[in-house]
Parts: sequence; C-alpha cells; structure tokens
Amino acid sequence: MEESVYSSYPPELSSAQQNYLVTAVKDWAIQNGLAVRPGPAILPEGIDPNGVLATNAPVTLFPSPFPRACFEDATALQTVYNELYAAITCNEQWLGKIVEDLIDVDDFVANLWKVHLAVQKEGYVQNLSLGLFRSDYMAHNSSDHAPALKQVEFNTISSSFGGLSSLVRALHTELLTSPPGSPISYPSHPLLESSTPPENTAVETLSAGLAAAHKAYGPSKSSPALPLGVLFVVQEGERNVFDQLALLKQLTGFHKIPVFRVLSTEVLNQTSIPSSNPARPLIYHPPHSPASIFEVTTVYLRAYYAPDEYKSSRDWDARTHLERSAAIKCPTVLNQLSGCKKVQQVLAEPTGPDHLSSFLSGTDSTVIAKLRETFAPQYDLSSVGQGRDLALNSDTALKHVLKPQREGEATTSTNQRFLDSCESDWKGWVLMELINPSASAKNVALRNDGEVLQGHVISELGVYGTILWDNTGKIHHNEQGGWLLRTKGKEVNEGGVAAGFSSLDSILLF
Amino acid sequence: MEESVYSSYPPELSSAQQNYLVTAVKDWAIQNGLAVRPGPAILPEGIDPNGVLATNAPVTLFPSPFPRACFEDATALQTVYNELYAAITCNEQWLGKIVEDLIDVDDFVANLWKVHLAVQKEGYVQNLSLGLFRSDYMAHNSSDHAPALKQVEFNTISSSFGGLSSLVRALHTELLTSPPGSPISYPSHPLLESSTPPENTAVETLSAGLAAAHKAYGPSKSSPALPLGVLFVVQEGERNVFDQLALLKQLTGFHKIPVFRVLSTEVLNQTSIPSSNPARPLIYHPPHSPASIFEVTTVYLRAYYAPDEYKSSRDWDARTHLERSAAIKCPTVLNQLSGCKKVQQVLAEPTGPDHLSSFLSGTDSTVIAKLRETFAPQYDLSSVGQGRDLALNSDTALKHVLKPQREGEATTSTNQRFLDSCESDWKGWVLMELINPSASAKNVALRNDGEVLQGHVISELGVYGTILWDNTGKIHHNEQGGWLLRTKGKEVNEGGVAAGFSSLDSILLF
Repeated sequence: MEESVYSSYPPELSSAQQNYLVTAVKDWAIQNGLAVRPGPAILPEGIDPNGVLATNAPVTLFPSPFPRACFEDATALQTVYNELYAAITCNEQWLGKIVEDLIDVDDFVANLWKVHLAVQKEGYVQNLSLGLFRSDYMAHNSSDHAPALKQVEFNTISSSFGGLSSLVRALHTELLTSPPGSPISYPSHPLLESSTPPENTAVETLSAGLAAAHKAYGPSKSSPALPLGVLFVVQEGERNVFDQLALLKQLTGFHKIPVFRVLSTEVLNQTSIPSSNPARPLIYHPPHSPASIFEVTTVYLRAYYAPDEYKSSRDWDARTHLERSAAIKCPTVLNQLSGCKKVQQVLAEPTGPDHLSSFLSGTDSTVIAKLRETFAPQYDLSSVGQGRDLALNSDTALKHVLKPQREGEATTSTNQRFLDSCESDWKGWVLMELINPSASAKNVALRNDGEVLQGHVISELGVYGTILWDNTGKIHHNEQGGWLLRTKGKEVNEGGVAAGFSSLDSILLF
Repeated sequence: MEESVYSSYPPELSSAQQNYLVTAVKDWAIQNGLAVRPGPAILPEGIDPNGVLATNAPVTLFPSPFPRACFEDATALQTVYNELYAAITCNEQWLGKIVEDLIDVDDFVANLWKVHLAVQKEGYVQNLSLGLFRSDYMAHNSSDHAPALKQVEFNTISSSFGGLSSLVRALHTELLTSPPGSPISYPSHPLLESSTPPENTAVETLSAGLAAAHKAYGPSKSSPALPLGVLFVVQEGERNVFDQLALLKQLTGFHKIPVFRVLSTEVLNQTSIPSSNPARPLIYHPPHSPASIFEVTTVYLRAYYAPDEYKSSRDWDARTHLERSAAIKCPTVLNQLSGCKKVQQVLAEPTGPDHLSSFLSGTDSTVIAKLRETFAPQYDLSSVGQGRDLALNSDTALKHVLKPQREGEATTSTNQRFLDSCESDWKGWVLMELINPSASAKNVALRNDGEVLQGHVISELGVYGTILWDNTGKIHHNEQGGWLLRTKGKEVNEGGVAAGFSSLDSILLF
C-alpha cells in the first residue's frame, strides 16, 4: 500500500504547470509571511546593507503523503512525551548522573551543568518551568509491517518552525482548493483530490503555552508593581525571524501580552535583577523607551541552544543571569539538558531499570508501551558491549548511524569517524539503528533562491507540545497541537530548513 | 490650529527609538505582505534571477495628522463622485466632444477613442460597467479659513494601493497600541496617545465591487455552461503585485470567486471569444490547465492605463478584444476616458452650462455644491482667455501648475514648458490653481531600500469607491470605503510609491 501511494506521486508537471505553481508559491509566501531573510548564497556582500530583503522559505510545491496511523500515534503521544520530559527535568539526580558522565567529552553540557549548579547553590526562586517541545519522527518501513512511527529526536529548546509550518499547511490547502469550486492549481491526481492537510495549530498551541506561563507567574514581584511581559531571547542576524514573529503576533494580538525581542548578546545590557529584591524579578529596560521598564514573566529562548553561541564568559554570565531570575524559563538549563541524545538512548535501553514506567507512573501501561515503540534501537558506546560490537562490524555498522551527543556536530552514516576517534571520545556518540523511510517518496521543492529541485525525498514529522510544571512535578498546563513536516532531498544528510538544504512541507494522510 | 498640530509633530526620535521603529516596520511589512518586489536601484542586474526577493513598501514611520472635516467630506462625497463619473461615461456625446477636441494633441486618447468606435460599430454586448475609483485630494490651507478639501485627480482605471494602504493602517495602529496595555513603540506625543487611524476597508470595498459585477454577469453565456471567474489583467514585471494580491485573496477567500491573473501581453494568447457565439463570452484558457476553460465575468485592468504599455498594434488589438467581449470591464474604454484631466477642468468651469447639476439630476443641490467646492480653479488653455492670461503672466503663473492631459507626463510648476511649446499644443494642458497644503507637516519615511528620510512632507488623500451601472444610467451597486494617504518629501514632484519616491502613510484625524 505505502509504496504504491508514493510511486505515482507527485504527478508530473508540465513546464506551464511548474511555472504556475512556482509563481503562485513565491507570491503567496511573501504575501503571507512564509518568508526568511536571504543568506549570503543569495545576496553577495554589500547588497542590501540595511537588511530589508526577504525571500520565500524553502517549501515543497506539493504536500507529502504520510501514513495516517503514524500521524495519529504521534499526536496522541505528545502530551505523554511532554510529561516524560517534565518528569526527567524534575529528577535532578537521575539527569545529573547522565550529564556528569558526559562532562569530559562535552564542554557544552559541562558548562550548562555549571550554570545549574551555580543557581542551585544560590537557590532557585522560580519553581515553574515551561517546555515548548517538538518531537521529531520518521515513518519507518519494514517489509512485514505497516509503517511505524520512530523518533529521531526530542527538542526541548528553541523548537522552531511552528509559525512557518502553519503557513505551509495554509499554502498547500489553498493550492488544493483553488480556484474555489473548480480547483486546477495542481494537475489531477487522486490523492490531491481526496483530502487537505490536517489542521495545524502550532502557532496557537505554542503561544498558549507561553501565555499560560505568563499568567501563572502571578503579580509583579517589584515594588511598586511593574507591567509584565514576555521576553524572546534571539540570535543576532536571525534569518528565521518570521517564524518567531508568528508566535509574537499571536501573543500580542490574541493574548494581549507585551512581548519584547532581545538579542542574546544584549541580555546583560537590557535586563537587570535588582540586588535589593530577594524575589529576583527580571527587569527589562527597553532601549527605545528607557523610562518604561517591564518585569519579565517568561523568558523564551530562541537562542543559547548551540555551543557556538557562547563566545565568551559574558554569554555564560547572561545565561546564568536569566536562570537565577524569577522569570519562568522556556526552557530551564535542566530542561535543555534533558534533550540530550544520551537521555534518549538511556530511555530506549531495552534492559535494566524501566525508566519510562517510573517517570510516567500515573500513565496506562499500554500508552507507555506505545511510546516505547517509537524508540529506534539505540546503543551506548561508552564501554564494551553490544553498541561497540555493532559499530565496529562493518556489516552491522551500515545499518546504524552515529548520533553525536554534542549539538552542532553532524550525524554520520559510516563508522569511519567512530574508528578514527579516540576510544575515550566514543561515549560522545550514540549508535542508533537506521530508520527506513519510504524509498519511493518524491517531491518538488522551491528553494529560497527560486531554484526548483525534484527527486527522491525523506520527510521528518515534528509534533509540537507545551507543558508548564513545577518542581514538585505538578503539571499546570499540558497540550499538544500543531506539526511540522520537513522534507529533504535524499542526497542531503542534514536538516536546517532556513539554510536552504531542506524544505518545509505539509502532509496528506493516507 | 492646523499649523500648531503639525509644528510639534512627529516627536523627535532618539537613535534607539528610530532603530526600534525601523526594525519593527521592516519585519512587520514582510510578515504581513506590505511588500513590493525590489527594483534595479536595490538589486543590481544578475542578482536574484528567479525574482524571489521582496522588500517593504516605502512607508512613513508615523501616521500623518489630517483634518477630520476634510476626511469626512471626502468619504461623504465618494458615492456622489461615483455616480458623477458613471453618468459622464453614459453620456457618450458629451464625453465624445471633449475627447474629439484632444485627438490631435493626444495619440493615446485618440487610440482609446478608436477602440470605442470600433466596438460601437460592431455593437456592444455588455451593458454593465464597473468602476473601481479613487478620488485624490489635498487639504488646502488658506489664511482665513479652516482647511478645505481640494481634488487633485479622479482615477477611473487601475486605482491602486487599496491593498497596501489597508496594511499601513494596520501597521500604524499596531505601533500606536503596542505593547498591549503599555504602548511604548512611539515616543510620547498627545496626538499619538489620543487616537488611532480610522478604519480602512479598501480591500473589502474594492473586492465587493468586483464581486457585485461577477454576480450581475449572470449565468454562463456558453453552451455547455462554463465555470465563471474574474480576470486581473496585469503588467509584466509588476513590482506592486502584493497590492493586487490583497484583492485577489479577498475575492477567492471571502467571496469564493475564481480569479486569474493574465499578463496584458498574453491576453490574446490566453483568452478567446468564440466566433460562433453572438453573446461573445470571453473564454480564459489557463496555460497550466488547458482543458479547464473558464468564462470571464469581469475584466479588472491593472494594466493598459499608460501609453507606453501599448507597444504595437497587437496591444491595441488585445484591448479591443476585451472591450468587445461580454465580460464586464473595469473600466470600459469610455470610463477610462472619463478620467481625462480635461474632463475635470470642464466640470470645474465656473461659467457656462452647469454640467454637475445635469449629471447629478437626482442629487440634492447642497451636496452638489459641496462636491463643486472640492474643485480647485482650473482653466482651459486651448484658446485665448483667462487661462492663457494667468499662465503667461509670470506673477500669476507661480500660483498655478500645468497639468498634462497625456498620461505619463509630469505636472510642472513653472510656465516655461508652456511658453516653449507650440501654441497648438497648449490645449494638451490644463492650468490649475496651486493647492496649498500645510507648510509645516513633517514625517519620517522608510524607503524600500531601508534608508530613512525625514523632513517636510506633502500628503495626498485618496478615497475609494465602487460603482456598477448599466448604459441606461441605472445604478446596481454604489459604495464608498477605504482610503490611501500618500506622503512625499517636499522636494519631490511626482508620486509613484512603488518607485520609492513617495511613501504609503495613514492618518490621525484632528
């Protein structure tokens, strides 16, 4: 069934059809904010010194077929995943044991852990944490079963593309149904005539999570009381700004909550914690209106997730400054650390303690079993055992990938890197069985420079969830909603939609 | 009163305030489709060969103060103006007399008239006409009176910027009210704290006009019946495409009417009139789906308004082809001709027949008087008389401008051009008394290359209206709604927002 769906899809495009779709998509993208700021590959240095230009986000011309059962499993499991990662974050001892094992191979993890220890020593003043998560999956094919949902990774910081992904869903839906009454934007194909992509509430869900935290913060801790607001901490030169602005628009327009964007490099200049106030409110000083200060209820990080963002000790000081404040962090340092690939591997461990059941003690065992089924087999490489055996054998190595623990390093599909590295570094990697997506999936993508690519593709489904909990483990808000499909040409190994290597997509369920 | 409003406005911007506003406006513009395609001044040749890039439309950072009484007069008069120009268009004899006088000085008018004569000879098959009009004004100051509304011109074809203008109103409103509860986007100023720009329904009004025509067309005239749709005829390389797409989105999304965009150069390739069908339905053949033909109810021209768009007889053939079809034209050739500057001057003639009263025979005389008050004094230059006297006297010439009858020629503020030209060409110009807008109005504009300009400005208010009538003079739909404020630096003489010389603005009424 699955392969037959993909085999005739998408329909061939005549040159007039392709021109029509490309023009429609290019224009729709700019009209509706499905946009990115162009990178140096499009604009040579010196052009556009004021940074006014924008281009379409890279998108597929067609939505991609995706197995309905896998999609439904992923959405059904999201609130359970939310709870799992909240519980892990609450269990500092369990998480600390994994983290401390990584300290000597991963400076970044080591430095994050130091931030936690420093704030712990002083004492945390905020017991609420907010998670805006995205769990990423592929539909795994095996010869004898229907496609099964397999998790690629679980993101606990800066889960992106909720804003743009909702727009891609709207774009494809419009193409599928236009013109009204007599749709002819796409060539005829049974799959394109039978359905539209499922609703995508990523913007509403993620914003509602931030709004829930803002509300849970309670009244101002300053005296006299200050107006309250949410802070988005963002990277300088962010090209994916319109994705973030979609959430900001919903927060200000719908929830009526003040939101400010602060560059991560400006955190120490534009925010302060009054030393005289033991509640440690985080005060925002708008540079454009220095007299009008605000108290920050919630810090939403769209920065500080990658090692190369911490260029000096000042950046670590800024992170510590935010962490020790009374603002609710999305995420806390501990919650960021719970997203380690090593955590995934420990959870997936087939033998030993049943971590899942203990973290999800209130959850039905069939649901836990369902969640466990989303784990691809993963192996520890820190010591002699099955993982090293599989990685060192050239036959079995081919069926596995090495996933780096360190953020920013590439997943690699051979064992050469592993063999070349020093044995003491091996624990910086996790060996994961290859997920086997459909071999015949195809699509056509419009890059953000306007070039059209077509061929075989691999798609990754992301499902969004938000959760607000306190450090006793009590959950105050737990929602699932919205999704992302990222589709890349098979020859490309890494994601990174904003960089133009992969495309934003939407789904037709079958 | 008026001058005091302008004297302290807008408030001074610190460099941090200006940076904040510029960033906010640049990002908002792209997120919300307040965009244009960049021109060669921004992008050197060879950059962006696929035409994916976009930039913000040029906009003012602040809304401009505008006298409330003038704004209210303009909106109250719009449906009367609609009716006036419908009545002029219906009176072929009256209009023809003016046009025939211009034929020897204006090839463009001569050729449009020929199109009408040719279709008239064959016989028109559509008795409905649609107007999407924009009446442009300035607030005229005189020492002894409150500011008075004076008309600059009345546009009967391709009245643009309804789409983007609505967005500028939304942008300024958001800046005025953000963050919610504690607005600090603008520096403090009484005018900025007391109000927001009036509602701007340009998109809804203009689209409703097109939808009214689509509906009034009735059932398909083809056998078998074809699906019906609206055709936007557009220019190749149109940079102001997002303005047009705002209307298209409303028509397809809200009214559920199929809309297609056709380049004016492709009209003869993509549309046909079956010679076997005396009803002459206009058939659209989508190049991307040749088997799915549509019948065009309404042709909306966003092209064919300037002489340089007619490069060969093929372009005139295409215009004639549309004109002789059964589609309702927005506008017809006659309605386009009614927008001649010479018509304005004849209407404004203080002596001789009372054209206004005869065209608006059903209208209250006080309303007609009010409309007449919007005319600036204008003079015929075709023969010896007051106009020539005023133009040839160097003192009085300074208080007047020469308005060219020909589209595309520049209004000139000296009489040198007049004196240099051959006397037989003088009737190609109309002499108009200078309108005297506030001398102290100022604003700050963000160009579409990101440069910030500030200084004294002149603003022009446009008010939109739509009317559907038949050639017996019966009116089927007559609405007013939406406005445009275009603001330009005082040193610049000509409009052209898309070209970057002037900026889209919104208004604060005082």
